Amino acid sequence: MTKIGIIGGTGYTGVELIRLLSRHPQAELAVITSRSEAGKLVSEIFPSLRGICDLEFSLPDANSFKNCDVVFSATPNGIAMTMARELLEAGVHLIDLAADFRIRDVDVWEQWYGMTHACPELLPEAVYGLPELNREEIRKARLVANPGCYPTAVTLGFMPLLKAGVIEISDLIADAKSGVSGAGRGANVGTLFTEAGDSFKAYAVGGHRHHPEISQILTQVAGAEVGLVFTPHLVPMIRGIHATLYAKIGVDNLPDIQDLYESHYQQEAFVDVLPQGSHPETRSVRGSNTCRIAVHRSGQRIIVLSVIDNLVKGAAGQAVQNMNLMCGYDEQTGLAVVPIAP
Amino acid sequence: MTKIGIIGGTGYTGVELIRLLSRHPQAELAVITSRSEAGKLVSEIFPSLRGICDLEFSLPDANSFKNCDVVFSATPNGIAMTMARELLEAGVHLIDLAADFRIRDVDVWEQWYGMTHACPELLPEAVYGLPELNREEIRKARLVANPGCYPTAVTLGFMPLLKAGVIEISDLIADAKSGVSGAGRGANVGTLFTEAGDSFKAYAVGGHRHHPEISQILTQVAGAEVGLVFTPHLVPMIRGIHATLYAKIGVDNLPDIQDLYESHYQQEAFVDVLPQGSHPETRSVRGSNTCRIAVHRSGQRIIVLSVIDNLVKGAAGQAVQNMNLMCGYDEQTGLAVVPIAP
Amino acid sequence: MTKIGIIGGTGYTGVELIRLLSRHPQAELAVITSRSEAGKLVSEIFPSLRGICDLEFSLPDANSFKNCDVVFSATPNGIAMTMARELLEAGVHLIDLAADFRIRDVDVWEQWYGMTHACPELLPEAVYGLPELNREEIRKARLVANPGCYPTAVTLGFMPLLKAGVIEISDLIADAKSGVSGAGRGANVGTLFTEAGDSFKAYAVGGHRHHPEISQILTQVAGAEVGLVFTPHLVPMIRGIHATLYAKIGVDNLPDIQDLYESHYQQEAFVDVLPQGSHPETRSVRGSNTCRIAVHRSGQRIIVLSVIDNLVKGAAGQAVQNMNLMCGYDEQTGLAVVPIAP
Amino acid sequence: MTKIGIIGGTGYTGVELIRLLSRHPQAELAVITSRSEAGKLVSEIFPSLRGICDLEFSLPDANSFKNCDVVFSATPNGIAMTMARELLEAGVHLIDLAADFRIRDVDVWEQWYGMTHACPELLPEAVYGLPELNREEIRKARLVANPGCYPTAVTLGFMPLLKAGVIEISDLIADAKSGVSGAGRGANVGTLFTEAGDSFKAYAVGGHRHHPEISQILTQVAGAEVGLVFTPHLVPMIRGIHATLYAKIGVDNLPDIQDLYESHYQQEAFVDVLPQGSHPETRSVRGSNTCRIAVHRSGQRIIVLSVIDNLVKGAAGQAVQNMNLMCGYDEQTGLAVVPIAP
Repeated sequence: MTKIGIIGGTGYTGVELIRLLSRHPQAELAVITSRSEAGKLVSEIFPSLRGICDLEFSLPDANSFKNCDVVFSATPNGIAMTMARELLEAGVHLIDLAADFRIRDVDVWEQWYGMTHACPELLPEAVYGLPELNREEIRKARLVANPGCYPTAVTLGFMPLLKAGVIEISDLIADAKSGVSGAGRGANVGTLFTEAGDSFKAYAVGGHRHHPEISQILTQVAGAEVGLVFTPHLVPMIRGIHATLYAKIGVDNLPDIQDLYESHYQQEAFVDVLPQGSHPETRSVRGSNTCRIAVHRSGQRIIVLSVIDNLVKGAAGQAVQNMNLMCGYDEQTGLAVVPIAP
Repeated sequence: MTKIGIIGGTGYTGVELIRLLSRHPQAELAVITSRSEAGKLVSEIFPSLRGICDLEFSLPDANSFKNCDVVFSATPNGIAMTMARELLEAGVHLIDLAADFRIRDVDVWEQWYGMTHACPELLPEAVYGLPELNREEIRKARLVANPGCYPTAVTLGFMPLLKAGVIEISDLIADAKSGVSGAGRGANVGTLFTEAGDSFKAYAVGGHRHHPEISQILTQVAGAEVGLVFTPHLVPMIRGIHATLYAKIGVDNLPDIQDLYESHYQQEAFVDVLPQGSHPETRSVRGSNTCRIAVHRSGQRIIVLSVIDNLVKGAAGQAVQNMNLMCGYDEQTGLAVVPIAP
Repeated sequence: MTKIGIIGGTGYTGVELIRLLSRHPQAELAVITSRSEAGKLVSEIFPSLRGICDLEFSLPDANSFKNCDVVFSATPNGIAMTMARELLEAGVHLIDLAADFRIRDVDVWEQWYGMTHACPELLPEAVYGLPELNREEIRKARLVANPGCYPTAVTLGFMPLLKAGVIEISDLIADAKSGVSGAGRGANVGTLFTEAGDSFKAYAVGGHRHHPEISQILTQVAGAEVGLVFTPHLVPMIRGIHATLYAKIGVDNLPDIQDLYESHYQQEAFVDVLPQGSHPETRSVRGSNTCRIAVHRSGQRIIVLSVIDNLVKGAAGQAVQNMNLMCGYDEQTGLAVVPIAP
Repeated sequence: MTKIGIIGGTGYTGVELIRLLSRHPQAELAVITSRSEAGKLVSEIFPSLRGICDLEFSLPDANSFKNCDVVFSATPNGIAMTMARELLEAGVHLIDLAADFRIRDVDVWEQWYGMTHACPELLPEAVYGLPELNREEIRKARLVANPGCYPTAVTLGFMPLLKAGVIEISDLIADAKSGVSGAGRGANVGTLFTEAGDSFKAYAVGGHRHHPEISQILTQVAGAEVGLVFTPHLVPMIRGIHATLYAKIGVDNLPDIQDLYESHYQQEAFVDVLPQGSHPETRSVRGSNTCRIAVHRSGQRIIVLSVIDNLVKGAAGQAVQNMNLMCGYDEQTGLAVVPIAP
């Protein structure tokens, strides 16, 4: 059994980790912390977990995690980095679901996240936890930067085209749409039911923190600097990301793109390439770790549609997938959830 | 392994049965029929089941079910009764998720459902499949009438009070609210997103088909004719039923009602009595077979709040629970789904 | 022209007042205050008002309101009472949309609202602003307590029965459902899209502040102390209240209740009694000042369905209706909004 | 007074026309037809119109419209063209809210709409009713093709850039998102609350009927053939379109684009250019005839965000705007609705 700790268990990625790990045959939840709810039962804050999780929230304290094998940090940005060194030294494997270890260039990170990085020396060692890209490195990692939700949907969508070298990498457009849970469980006027409901808008055009993260990964995949326009939007739904990706064909003889996607992802348990002409719905992956992709062509443009559940493949599910790799378990262990539809 | 057939797999109870049975360790889905979609893959109609269910819909035909051990009928009312005799004679266990076998009095049934019953001789043998009420009869049954969604939420809510004989049974009020999936997957103007969304209404006041069903069961539980007002409402959400129940105290020395509920349901895996002062949310049971109940008092009135997922405990999950009982499996087999929240 | 001030214009009742008053031919919006947004354009906070309202929010200050003819207080509870005396002395008419002047008994008020009342001497003079009940008093009032949203829907629903003396007033049940805007525009976890969306629950069972308000008004209407059970619920929709009311028939010869309702409200411009057998939807009054009512019977119970838009007839619209009465305008002036459906 | 007829009043554009025209000081609603609901009161089908509209639906019959001054056709595609000749000959002005007269090239029309055009000889005379583009022609027209909802949002968004000649017109991308009411009031499984709710998807990628319409208009505006990728998506909200437009800068010295938009639309009552850095929300135009636009830049790409209410500026409101022009009324008559937010 793998002993598990969760730093910051009161947000949506926290409750989702508990949901998944409670049914993971190799995981034993040992510690869940929360500064605000310490002393309360987890199931008091999340009644959906009554009878599933009997733990209490405890105060965050690095010592309490030192007996854990794997610690997930499900806190806001800037927390995991303050505990990382101590945990790694104690032999703990750390998976950070926030952004502390996602950006290689510490200057870029500090500029976008507005704080000084607490352990820049760990950045080179951190592995970007997208198994479909970095599976072997993840197996050997002790520090994993779990990807953001938008970066996961966008990267999985563009990857086959970038690897095949068939598009103009200077002209990528990602028009992405997210459910409201992507904004977290903090009390904000902008994500009230009455503000986000029955409405649709773009936000942070030209200035979203996932932009440098996506650019970095796409550049790594392409092997050269990409040019990316990234436009996030807020959808009046709870879960789900839909990325609509536009790429310009950059070769004279384009291979069959349906074949390209199907063969690229043939071995991947969590990426499902839909038949030609399909339009994936976010609800088709609700609650599951699957990314569904469809690929279309319109003139000289390839249009890729990529959907994930932002809290699962875009956060907690991918983190469990990474844990499975790090611990040597079958990659799908504990992730066999059938999507809930309707 | 238990070989399973599903009659009518294109509605919401059908897809929910597939979701649950696909993860049931003792179930093998053998036949799923659909008049309209025969020949198509189940996963073509329900992309959430891609990689989960590889079956095709076939044309409904009693013969195709004769090799099954258990057949679920997930069709509209009036279909199961036309196949029941033949299936039972072939040794098949039949669980009807529609209303064909729920009402003991065939005249009452024919009046409310507007058709002639095809096999009234089977009604005495049919067991009303509410395990918390009829567990032992279900174990021995070959024909189970799976309860309606409203009746399940209302009966589980009133049962401890009725069994204890502490309320005036002539004056029961059930103000019930259902998500839109309760209306099924048929194309109707009234359940369009644009009609049912961002709005709330009562419907069928004084004339809902679940009224005689609830009255019959409550009368059975109380041991005497009950008087019931039942008011269903439509909520702009996908899943979930919330029953708000009002009962007038009928005894001078009322026992502690919190204790009454907790002890009544102590042994029940799928009924969760919340702590005093609680208000269950429908989302706390989303996707799961649990009924959560809270009990309050206001003057001489007891107010019971009872929530279920109408497609699980109110339909497919309860049907699987019944199958487990009929087949001698642990009652919880295949039903350990953690609710999805948010 | 009537010069108007609004205290606290950043909440939902504030923006709704601006929406309605901007099209009121006799109203001139002069001052809108907000402690948090002072100095900003109203239309910066509410882009829906771009081109409609050119005012800036100013800091709250009793002096700035002294040139107004009518001041609406759209703040949280406990603010209007601190300015009331000064404003009335300056000759201003004050309409409080919060609860400061709704409860006659100052002890009851202080118990439920948890503060000391700042001007209990004004309570006897304050008129409860339900025009269908107190029209003549409102015409002469200089201080109006605008009713709560639940009390409006419940009182209009029960009033004909209470006035006719045909029900048992000791046994009233109001099962009420509200859209999320009823909780205001404050940042709260409980009203996030992700928490209140796709779910349904009761709240404050036995302890909602509108309970004593409703009891007081129903008692006034009935002429004797009523017994009331009041159960509020939260609906995943933005606007709207649906009250489902249960009353026990208390006379041997019940008059035709459809006639009773139709004749009672015959002269009322803002109460619409639907034909027999109807079920009003909240969306049928969205954005308008109308209350729609249907009345049903089930055995010895009368069931009344009453819907309003909580922000209009339940707040800002009713306040404008009161202003019209106080200023001698036609009661419907500025309120001829056609409901928006779908 | 202008005597008005509406062909097909049971859809969403029909009810929206009635909502707007009922408050139009120069309009008198004379005839509303519906094949399915003839003989019923309009307000029986749409209770939101009780007390607003006293008409009955009548059977469609060209003769009944001949006394009208203006007839709006709010039917599905293919109906208006069968009555157009007769109505025009009778001196009636016709505004078709469907697509019968939007495409100049009858072959293109017949290919996309799958039927033979009933009066191709009228196509040259039909004016495309986008006042911001064709105001003077509309004033003189007797036959107006009211634009589609997507084409309105997209064209108003691209127009200033195209007129200024500063972008590469061969490389336009319109990633558009629509509320569910865009699909109409017909009973379809795909637009049920349970299917379209809490989910997001693209649809008709590469094959939407608005594609040729948009291309035709953008080509007219640009003065040369444009290349357009158009991707429509379905948003779980009732009303609203959000078009996210991508254009590549095509000149070395790009003028200030904020200035460009503000000056282009300075005289337009129904187009609102937001301040730099803004993100328009669809709810900010809910129920109103306004289009709100924000313009951003990211590298060599200009990103335009354009929102409308699909049923108002995208249908009925624009039709009334066209009627005002055709009849010589002030363009804003009857359209001074303040958006309803929240």
